[in-house]
Amino acid sequence: MTERPFPHPTDDRLLGLRVVADDPTVVRFTLEPKLCRGDGALFGGTALAAAMACFELAASRPSLWATVQFIGIATQGEELECRVDVVARGNHVDQLQLTATVGERLVFSAVGSTATRRADGIHGQARTMPAVVSPDACDSIPMGPPSESEPAGHHLVSEFREVVPIDGATPGQLVMWARLTGEVETSAAKLAFLADMVPIAICRAAGVQGAGTSLDNSLRVGRLVDTEWILVELEAHGASGGYGYGISHMWAPDGTLMATGSQSAKLFSFDTFRQRLSARAGGS
Amino acid sequence: MTERPFPHPTDDRLLGLRVVADDPTVVRFTLEPKLCRGDGALFGGTALAAAMACFELAASRPSLWATVQFIGIATQGEELECRVDVVARGNHVDQLQLTATVGERLVFSAVGSTATRRADGIHGQARTMPAVVSPDACDSIPMGPPSESEPAGHHLVSEFREVVPIDGATPGQLVMWARLTGEVETSAAKLAFLADMVPIAICRAAGVQGAGTSLDNSLRVGRLVDTEWILVELEAHGASGGYGYGISHMWAPDGTLMATGSQSAKLFSFDTFRQRLSARAGGS
Repeated sequence: MTERPFPHPTDDRLLGLRVVADDPTVVRFTLEPKLCRGDGALFGGTALAAAMACFELAASRPSLWATVQFIGIATQGEELECRVDVVARGNHVDQLQLTATVGERLVFSAVGSTATRRADGIHGQARTMPAVVSPDACDSIPMGPPSESEPAGHHLVSEFREVVPIDGATPGQLVMWARLTGEVETSAAKLAFLADMVPIAICRAAGVQGAGTSLDNSLRVGRLVDTEWILVELEAHGASGGYGYGISHMWAPDGTLMATGSQSAKLFSFDTFRQRLSARAGGS
Repeated sequence: MTERPFPHPTDDRLLGLRVVADDPTVVRFTLEPKLCRGDGALFGGTALAAAMACFELAASRPSLWATVQFIGIATQGEELECRVDVVARGNHVDQLQLTATVGERLVFSAVGSTATRRADGIHGQARTMPAVVSPDACDSIPMGPPSESEPAGHHLVSEFREVVPIDGATPGQLVMWARLTGEVETSAAKLAFLADMVPIAICRAAGVQGAGTSLDNSLRVGRLVDTEWILVELEAHGASGGYGYGISHMWAPDGTLMATGSQSAKLFSFDTFRQRLSARAGGS
């Protein structure tokens, strides 16, 4: 278990992190179109990816877990400044906190751990990857923007292909092959970026055509395996009163469970969304 | 969906929260033996329960989700002060942060949301409760302290009874009936207190007699149903290099999925633990 330098080259290519004044606890990056949603706002997966990469930079250890809390708005072209506090430093584990701001505006906070794995530490895997056909046999899911005038979205660097498990999907399960195109190295940040898909599975499980706004985004990391294609197994748990939650298992093609994400989200149906848009267009 | 006053009476009886100077964002409570582990240190479930109850007090809305990050040590008899910041206040959702200290010592931090559910909001449940016999047909799991000289532990107010699903357990699954004895009201804090059992399932899935020290503790809340007995369905995901993670679904006996917890933990085998104890006893 050798440790690689941080940030991982793949994270640097994705996020374009800039260490400020040689202090690895202060990092800036620009919200490029690929790091935004179709509407030009910060993509949730970007925030968690940035937090995990910044934690690794500050602690010089791999990320083990992180949770991001979404607080304020940030839009395409803005520069985010991430400040990390190492609140506890141990022999093997650190606890860290992060605040991300645009000027004085608080955009998101994060808490998380970095850890040096022990070669003789307890290990094991309880779950088995769903049996699926290879990505070559699957079609891309259209993830483009609502209009050509706003060419933002993670689809500029990522691709998702839905695949039905050979044994059939279990209730609430939605499985996709995903990749950061051309990126073979696997990092916590890359998985965080690709794991932010849970609301789709929740809406589908609730029988509604809709999506969600993440309130938070977490990732727990196991053993990483370098691979371009990653199997994202979304598992909706439930929704109540317009809020829902679920998880996303991130599998390497060899069957290794590399990480598991989780999120809570405020849900909306596309019908409601269209009604609001047309009401806004009408000036109300 | 009427909202009840906060804190819930059941949370008040468990935690003994004291609002300081009529400011609902500053709350103190004493680490009584029932709120500690067998060794007299803060029990992880206590921290998450306190955070969720404090968030509800500060926001006057039910908790939707919270994550606690464990930073410092607190022991039996100490007084914790929890300070809440409402970092975003919306029409339906708030984002909150909390720090818990003993004097100047930072013990844990928390982030989380409170939300008013909408009667017409998206709802649905993707999972089904495991089929099990009733708690009356199950035996209590001994959860007592390692010695009679240290009568601390959540077992002073709680009870757990292991139950094997009628259709058999899936890999990594460990199911228990649990209760806060005599408490019929269900709150997010009560579920948080009872959900902190994931490391047991991880060690069992890894084939090791052991336990874990939580690095963090999260709970995502769905629809609550008042019930004394709660079915805790632990699901180990995996362990690598001495760290593991998994989730805990919290079911009402009527089959409602009320909440899902998740944790990452540093794992140790009881063999290693005993070796360290005897080394310490030997003065090394």
